[in-house]
Amino acid sequence: MRTTTGWQSLAPTSNVLTRVTIERRDLRPDDLAVRVDYCGVCHSDLHRIHGLLGEKNLVPGHEATGMVVAIGPAVTGFAVGDRVAIGTIIDSCGECAMCLAGQENYCYNRPTTTYGGTDRIDGTPTKGAYSREYVLREKFAFHLPDALDPAAAAPLMCAGASVWEPLRAAGAGPGSRVAVAGLGGLGHLAVKLATALGAEVTVLSRSTAKEQDARKLGASGLLVTTDEAQVAAARGRFDFIIDTIAADHELSPLLSMLDLDGTLCVLGNPLLTGPKLWELGAGRKKLTSSGTAGLRRTVELLEFCAEHGITADVETLPSSEIETALNRLAAGDVRYRLVLDLSDLDR
Amino acid sequence: MRTTTGWQSLAPTSNVLTRVTIERRDLRPDDLAVRVDYCGVCHSDLHRIHGLLGEKNLVPGHEATGMVVAIGPAVTGFAVGDRVAIGTIIDSCGECAMCLAGQENYCYNRPTTTYGGTDRIDGTPTKGAYSREYVLREKFAFHLPDALDPAAAAPLMCAGASVWEPLRAAGAGPGSRVAVAGLGGLGHLAVKLATALGAEVTVLSRSTAKEQDARKLGASGLLVTTDEAQVAAARGRFDFIIDTIAADHELSPLLSMLDLDGTLCVLGNPLLTGPKLWELGAGRKKLTSSGTAGLRRTVELLEFCAEHGITADVETLPSSEIETALNRLAAGDVRYRLVLDLSDLDR
Repeated sequence: MRTTTGWQSLAPTSNVLTRVTIERRDLRPDDLAVRVDYCGVCHSDLHRIHGLLGEKNLVPGHEATGMVVAIGPAVTGFAVGDRVAIGTIIDSCGECAMCLAGQENYCYNRPTTTYGGTDRIDGTPTKGAYSREYVLREKFAFHLPDALDPAAAAPLMCAGASVWEPLRAAGAGPGSRVAVAGLGGLGHLAVKLATALGAEVTVLSRSTAKEQDARKLGASGLLVTTDEAQVAAARGRFDFIIDTIAADHELSPLLSMLDLDGTLCVLGNPLLTGPKLWELGAGRKKLTSSGTAGLRRTVELLEFCAEHGITADVETLPSSEIETALNRLAAGDVRYRLVLDLSDLDR
Repeated sequence: MRTTTGWQSLAPTSNVLTRVTIERRDLRPDDLAVRVDYCGVCHSDLHRIHGLLGEKNLVPGHEATGMVVAIGPAVTGFAVGDRVAIGTIIDSCGECAMCLAGQENYCYNRPTTTYGGTDRIDGTPTKGAYSREYVLREKFAFHLPDALDPAAAAPLMCAGASVWEPLRAAGAGPGSRVAVAGLGGLGHLAVKLATALGAEVTVLSRSTAKEQDARKLGASGLLVTTDEAQVAAARGRFDFIIDTIAADHELSPLLSMLDLDGTLCVLGNPLLTGPKLWELGAGRKKLTSSGTAGLRRTVELLEFCAEHGITADVETLPSSEIETALNRLAAGDVRYRLVLDLSDLDR
């Protein structure tokens, strides 16, 4: 066994995490050991620490970048010293229709999640990247392009992948009219990525507070969703709306702004219930959602970001400040992603 | 004023309709007067007679065929004696984005419905085609192709149009795997049309009772949705599911049978509520609905049906038997569309 240190949750009522010693498996032939340098703090970490999935004693973290420090004997794609990125899943069955289609994120036999999952071989619980070392199969590790800053690239691995896949599936590009609802971790990357894909992008927000930010990120403008007149004037205006709002909210105003055959993709709150079907019927509107990305699309995302100079807007904190990070995330006080620097775990 | 006779609803608790004298407007320059020979009995007629939209004293009927008996002086596309068909809408603003896109059915200023609506010029309530004569603008009347039997073609105007538009919007054709849930008025036409478009079609039904019918209509088979093993084995099997079930029902089994990026189009029950969003997220599945068809697609449907010899499987009753027709429709005792013969109103 290898040992490392990390941050483990205590109770669903608390944002306090405890520094603990974590065991990592000895490397299997196709394994990498990764020194984790940075890990993004995702809203889903907060939900799961708070018991959304009924879990306890989690070591969260699934948006990581670092360096390969050891490799198993069968590893062919990585060498010690390589820059590497880790996302939300670290294994899948490899045999079902989804895996064969390159959509390991939808594996019919459930993908193994980076934390809170169960290893497919030894049955141990997976512990995440709020830790100094991570061990995973090379198949599920990604080369981090040299052009990308490792702290600012970490959030690409969940926030970025989560918006990239539906944008690509929707064919967002020149001529598409895309709206992004909610300008947080996912939303600000959706604006950058959709803009770089060539789409015309509008931010949908409850106030004008983020208008300047929206434009800086590449949006052509901001539409205030609490202003009924603005919403009414935007009837049928968008082909694709990507909804990253984590709080409960009404989908009807968003649907009203879709054009014929337009699609609303709800990512921020998977527990929302769809509207009455007639709301979709008035103009053949489509409601959808998605869950992170498969390996192929994640590689594509990293290459695209390297080419276009895209990373997240981040604020980096020492990992010992995880409680502050979670409190600020819960309060919405983040522009636009907090990233933990795990190097303090060496001390 | 012109006068004719028709059948008017009494109370939301009753399937008894009363024979009444109906006034029709004197022809405006672009109007046709149509002798209604046949009118299909649509499930929505039943819902609206029963007060779904809070209406009273309705003259229902929006699936009609007949003959032009008089034309206004500006009519250019029809002559007295022409075979004609009438559908669910008889006017729209003609100026909004939807009308300009040929989707008068989604007119932003509300299309005028064939019954239970309000005429855009004189403000009178529209009365439907459970009557011997109907008056409408020629723009919203359709030439009934000679190849189509007028009784069996009547249901094309709502049941047919309602499934044709989403099938075409989804690009159903060779290589598509289409499922049709519910084998009633809409469902049986969806099977015929999707098959003629070249799709592989499966019927989804609660029992095997309609398996032989499904195959006769062109389906390659029938899948029993109450058989969990059959549903599980069909995971990811379809690209497009068209759901024509009028009763309340669960959408989850249908969603589970959609492949990646597949679409479930719910037509039979617009009051259903969508599922939790995570159900759509597992495989980027799309939920949609639609409402009948625009003028262009309706013309296309009639031409396609003439070319492929497609009409509804109908049973024709004298219009005086409307109560029996509604009772049988409410009881599900229809294979697959009841059509009223309005000629008895001459006596």
